[in-house]
Amino acid sequence: MTPEPCARIGIDIGGTSTEALMLNDRGSIEAEVQLDTEPGIEAVLDTVERAVAILSERSGRSLSDFVSLGIGIPGQVDHERGIVRHAYNIGVDELALASAVQGRIGIPVSLDNDVTAAAIGAAQLMQLDGSVAYLNLGTGIAAGFVIDGQPMRGAHGVTGEIGHLAIDPRGRACPCGQRGCLETVASGSALRSFWRADANGRLLMSELAAGDPGAEDAFEALVTGAATAVRLLVLTLDPHTVVIGGGLRMLGAPLLDGIRDTLDAWAAASPFLANLNMSARILPLPANSPAAAVGAALSYRG
Amino acid sequence: MTPEPCARIGIDIGGTSTEALMLNDRGSIEAEVQLDTEPGIEAVLDTVERAVAILSERSGRSLSDFVSLGIGIPGQVDHERGIVRHAYNIGVDELALASAVQGRIGIPVSLDNDVTAAAIGAAQLMQLDGSVAYLNLGTGIAAGFVIDGQPMRGAHGVTGEIGHLAIDPRGRACPCGQRGCLETVASGSALRSFWRADANGRLLMSELAAGDPGAEDAFEALVTGAATAVRLLVLTLDPHTVVIGGGLRMLGAPLLDGIRDTLDAWAAASPFLANLNMSARILPLPANSPAAAVGAALSYRG
Repeated sequence: MTPEPCARIGIDIGGTSTEALMLNDRGSIEAEVQLDTEPGIEAVLDTVERAVAILSERSGRSLSDFVSLGIGIPGQVDHERGIVRHAYNIGVDELALASAVQGRIGIPVSLDNDVTAAAIGAAQLMQLDGSVAYLNLGTGIAAGFVIDGQPMRGAHGVTGEIGHLAIDPRGRACPCGQRGCLETVASGSALRSFWRADANGRLLMSELAAGDPGAEDAFEALVTGAATAVRLLVLTLDPHTVVIGGGLRMLGAPLLDGIRDTLDAWAAASPFLANLNMSARILPLPANSPAAAVGAALSYRG
Repeated sequence: MTPEPCARIGIDIGGTSTEALMLNDRGSIEAEVQLDTEPGIEAVLDTVERAVAILSERSGRSLSDFVSLGIGIPGQVDHERGIVRHAYNIGVDELALASAVQGRIGIPVSLDNDVTAAAIGAAQLMQLDGSVAYLNLGTGIAAGFVIDGQPMRGAHGVTGEIGHLAIDPRGRACPCGQRGCLETVASGSALRSFWRADANGRLLMSELAAGDPGAEDAFEALVTGAATAVRLLVLTLDPHTVVIGGGLRMLGAPLLDGIRDTLDAWAAASPFLANLNMSARILPLPANSPAAAVGAALSYRG
């Protein structure tokens, strides 16, 4: 079989692992690889280069068969200039990542915030029209937006940083310097700070199953915070769909049901909110959907 | 002089007054009129019809010279279908306003939420490129968005209803059924409920000038709430510009300076916020700018 002429690579660089995949020109995933993320500029560049080599090998394509490489990365991303700033959890303060990668592998590179990339990928994978808000419940909490197929990247690369909206003047101090940020309530880092230092989605699930009261309180706080985020997204952008994704999505149906029940309880107390049909707008990202890597692959516009 | 072939009418139906104007095809205002708003469906329709007749007379044009009529109105607006819902302060629960007006005067009619219309008008009048968030500080508090020249109307006509985001779980009860809504702090209705029943921008200015401590507290709460709204808009949509408009804009430089000082104080306490350049994004809507009527006139796409 003759290789497709316009295969695209998408890479999602996360705090712990890097997911890379190759889309053929029908948009299907043809090869995938997952690598550990090592912190620091050189390590990140090496990992990207290694991922591309593995995708090339697994797909039987040469580098010249790839028309573009898109990268999703946490931090403040200047998409136009291909620069990422403040990507602290991968040990990068500021880096012209697009040109650095392009220099190494010779393919045009585009850069997006990972949550924006996930919003692009979710809209594509779930075939969502209209306006889509993607709510990422992971180590932090943030959102990405796609309106009629167009990602909203904002003026300074901070679109959807809703984790640092203060929702309670008497809330917990946030590492960002504010108090009562949404992220201090509804995020993996919040679970670790107010429940258990070793908290993650899997542990929370097993402790919930075991009936641990602390786990139930933590879960309740997470659900309320996530519902707060959905209300915020609906009252700001009024999207057709709010996709729930991120690492804590693994909590599954109880998480989704909990968010919907919370929104419905609020609606029952407020005719204004009832009118918004908030819970009906929510959809979970399907399990094992590499939304950010797919979105990164689709993000490049040559 | 031969009349232009594509004059447009824009009408901003507010709670107390209705502003109408005619734009010629160079986008200049050629005629204007302001009428009292009377509540109720028939009264609203009569006022619109009367405004069009006056604009026709003042501009020396016949109805057939007008290619479109755009209306901005408070409430939940279905732009596609030309329907407004929950426009309580003008006594309208639900009305197919576009078709009703079109039936009376025979010109194509488009309908927008008044704050969305004001965002369109502000972007035009102030010649703002990129992404614009318009923050309306009036009886309520709400926002409208224009991204690269395109208004964001949302899925269900509730885009920018940020006044009903809860920012304090122990805050005041809001008529919407929630507690601690932004609108209970930073709005004309908030001033009336917690300062003086006859509060308005003019009274607040004069009492501030007289050194009234209650007025100072009310002003401080308004400024803090408005700054909270700006932070919310920046962290959600990351707009290039946040335009401050609405009836309370008349508080002038002290209001703008107060919002900027508050944002700068927050930035000084948070490197994360400092990085957002929030206060630099703010611009006031110039005094006496009929942004909503201009935006309504420009909203129609034939």
